Amino acid sequence: MTKTELAIIGGGQLARMMAQPANALGIRTRLLAEGDDVSAAQVIRDYVVGSHLDLDDLKRAIADAPVVTFDHEHVPNQHLQALIDEGHECRPGPHALLFAQDKLKMRQRLSELGIPCPRWTQVSSIEDVREFGFPLVLKTARGGYDGKGVWVIREETQARDIIENADVELLAEELVDFSRELSAQVARSASGEIVAYPVVESRQENGVCALVIAPAPNMDPTQANEASTIAVKVATQLDVVGMLAVELFETNDGRILVNELAMRPHNTGHWTIEGAATSQFENHLRAVLDLPLGGAEAREDWAVMVNILGGSATDLVARRKVALAAEPNVHVHLYGKEVKAGRKVGHVTATGNDLESVLASARRSAELLTNEEN
Amino acid sequence: MTKTELAIIGGGQLARMMAQPANALGIRTRLLAEGDDVSAAQVIRDYVVGSHLDLDDLKRAIADAPVVTFDHEHVPNQHLQALIDEGHECRPGPHALLFAQDKLKMRQRLSELGIPCPRWTQVSSIEDVREFGFPLVLKTARGGYDGKGVWVIREETQARDIIENADVELLAEELVDFSRELSAQVARSASGEIVAYPVVESRQENGVCALVIAPAPNMDPTQANEASTIAVKVATQLDVVGMLAVELFETNDGRILVNELAMRPHNTGHWTIEGAATSQFENHLRAVLDLPLGGAEAREDWAVMVNILGGSATDLVARRKVALAAEPNVHVHLYGKEVKAGRKVGHVTATGNDLESVLASARRSAELLTNEEN
Repeated sequence: MTKTELAIIGGGQLARMMAQPANALGIRTRLLAEGDDVSAAQVIRDYVVGSHLDLDDLKRAIADAPVVTFDHEHVPNQHLQALIDEGHECRPGPHALLFAQDKLKMRQRLSELGIPCPRWTQVSSIEDVREFGFPLVLKTARGGYDGKGVWVIREETQARDIIENADVELLAEELVDFSRELSAQVARSASGEIVAYPVVESRQENGVCALVIAPAPNMDPTQANEASTIAVKVATQLDVVGMLAVELFETNDGRILVNELAMRPHNTGHWTIEGAATSQFENHLRAVLDLPLGGAEAREDWAVMVNILGGSATDLVARRKVALAAEPNVHVHLYGKEVKAGRKVGHVTATGNDLESVLASARRSAELLTNEEN
Repeated sequence: MTKTELAIIGGGQLARMMAQPANALGIRTRLLAEGDDVSAAQVIRDYVVGSHLDLDDLKRAIADAPVVTFDHEHVPNQHLQALIDEGHECRPGPHALLFAQDKLKMRQRLSELGIPCPRWTQVSSIEDVREFGFPLVLKTARGGYDGKGVWVIREETQARDIIENADVELLAEELVDFSRELSAQVARSASGEIVAYPVVESRQENGVCALVIAPAPNMDPTQANEASTIAVKVATQLDVVGMLAVELFETNDGRILVNELAMRPHNTGHWTIEGAATSQFENHLRAVLDLPLGGAEAREDWAVMVNILGGSATDLVARRKVALAAEPNVHVHLYGKEVKAGRKVGHVTATGNDLESVLASARRSAELLTNEEN
């Protein structure tokens, strides 16, 4: 048996989708999974059940793996440092992950680097909020995801409870008048090689990514270049190793502003599995193992990814047949998760040369997977 | 945990490559593997170690799986019948597999169907061989693969030992004066839906597939259509469910003749992973689970697949970095097998619009994976 090359912390769908390039490239992986039947544990043979918050569990999972990477950014930094002290490579490292874990530190660092952000400030009292001015977005510095820990505040009373009950640092940000949201992804290897994926448009519903169009339609080339340049700069200056997603606002007055950072494969890059020369999952693995990166260019004019969020259909295996019958060329990805309302349980990707028909196919497939017909 | 939908018999690289679409489509699989660390057992969590020749092992592996499919065609037909009698679906079924297992029965059946074959006859004595005329190809009806059980006979003395020591039926076939070898693949679902992949050229070295070009260059459209029509007819008439590969000779006088049949994903279809709208592995799974099939059309003008056969390099993990550095956009597939001289241990696929450069890239990547540099 060959040696374990890589440990992956966290058994969600991102780890699940890393399995495919790991198998192709012959990379032996070991998984730290939250349970015996979580998404990635279903498809990675060598797994350990435990918590990413428990250093002993982490050590048990990592054991002889020289390199460690992540399905999410939630491993405590002191644990990562302990693993590094024992000789493991953590990629991305805690010095980079910090800026994906803590929005306040992220805003401070990006502002130092001159990277365009919404106007922001740390707030700890209702007076701070009042001084910032309404409307604003109130965010917890840590722990938010998929719209959680984020509130749009239009008047003082809406902020009071949040501030009084907050057990983490808070920041206020300008409520950006954006025309749409974009995502710029890059892969950066341990040696510093970087490839940039086409900038995509992402559409959110209820704070959760619903749909991605690659590349972003009607994108001004100068702006697309600016977005990619920001992502390359962030990856380089923050020493990110692996995939980096920079979520951006395109404002109505033509500016590009950084919204959030993710230092792992990202929902806005799922289209790359079929749509790009090298998928984000493969380039993440190549980057963290310091292998040369693959091309990030699109394979067809358009790719559209639609998330499957838990709806009225609970038996996805049964719905799969209906969706494939209607749209046999839309690529279906199911995550092996139990359906709960609004939970991400899969996605579909369509590619082609005509955006309208690609959009229609992906939407139809997703709708048939999400909901029972009446 | 969702139910097991599919059992796969045999833990080689074909089963390994079925894991990817199984994971994407959320198909729970159970594997019967020859050992704890064979190629597919490394990447399919739910496996049982045992032999495909042992009915108890087969039953243990299949257990509650409603459908059974195969990495190879070597499960004894009486065992398959026993599984069917217990209510499992075997896809392809023993009535079809028979014609992939037994070349004599295959020639008889194809000749009945009017499908063009090399001139052939059953032989059991040196007189039979003499009467057929030299040169000829002598083949064992059963048990041959990758050039084994096949002999080119130019004079009587070469045939004598083979005939005297044969413990299986033999057939003699015309030594075809072929210009090249082709492969026509189709997927056929349990409901009878069929899709045909582009006809490809395969180049053999020492009886083993070395390289595949998709589509076959300079192919006369009428001949390509004839090859596809043969494959569709064979799949339909023999009631094949799953992938069928029809290996063909293109003769110097412009005929298409059937060489061999394989009823599973096939080495000549590995290019479809990156090169076709739906890979042969995904369409095999869709076919045996009676799901609608995906498109079989090529995604780019050219795809070239080159096998990695065991050479002077024994540490493929180390060579992987060298190959990716030289050809970062060639897709590397390693099978997790120990390197032995001439053994298939992986393959690479390149795609693009210029055949010469696609060929050169694939060959260079394969060479760097196969052999240490001097």
